[in-house]
Amino acid sequence: MTPIETVTTFVGHWNSGDMEAMYAMCAPTVVWHNIPMEPIKGVAAMREAVAGFMGPVAACDWQIHAIAADDGVVLTERTDAFHLKDGRIAALPVMGTFEIDSDGKIAQWRDYFDMGQFQREFGGG
Amino acid sequence: MTPIETVTTFVGHWNSGDMEAMYAMCAPTVVWHNIPMEPIKGVAAMREAVAGFMGPVAACDWQIHAIAADDGVVLTERTDAFHLKDGRIAALPVMGTFEIDSDGKIAQWRDYFDMGQFQREFGGG
Repeated sequence: MTPIETVTTFVGHWNSGDMEAMYAMCAPTVVWHNIPMEPIKGVAAMREAVAGFMGPVAACDWQIHAIAADDGVVLTERTDAFHLKDGRIAALPVMGTFEIDSDGKIAQWRDYFDMGQFQREFGGG
Repeated sequence: MTPIETVTTFVGHWNSGDMEAMYAMCAPTVVWHNIPMEPIKGVAAMREAVAGFMGPVAACDWQIHAIAADDGVVLTERTDAFHLKDGRIAALPVMGTFEIDSDGKIAQWRDYFDMGQFQREFGGG
């Protein structure tokens, strides 16, 4: 799998809700940094963060608009849509960088977005 | 010039303060969208926005950490540092997409960042 295929597959697991397949693509020491927040380090911490964050989410529909790689560094431009359990859809414009290690695992994941926009999309009801 | 060279040269003009060379690299119909704000359309509107935005800025020091292209679409991960006239340095983590047209000009520029972080970096003093 090329680094770009790794990232598209990883996003596919989020979209199909196959979270165990998603975690299996991460290095044990993965660092997941939503830039406006503190970095999340390691798969155990990632599981905890996902559990909280996905509470109101019924399904993900993340669209990759652009993707390009320089060796193992993959850059993406996306709209991350979330179908919420209350029937609303939250949609967040995001860019993210994924660093793929020599085992083909995701070692670093950094997403850049506006926290205010995130809160407006997920808030209210 | 490859699309990646176009973007690194463009960022170089911001850093050297050669704003006329920077504008000359933009298509007349350029769309500059700082995602948390409204898009800015055309070079005349861009000049106006830059004049306002750069008021407190003495110099730019934008560092490109990662850059990759898919044809004419160039994705970047950066830290955009700004040396302010009051002596402080504002530093903003950013990802940006640049679309290069068939004339080699920048047709679209979209930057993703957290508006709250931008305001905290530029505010105070």
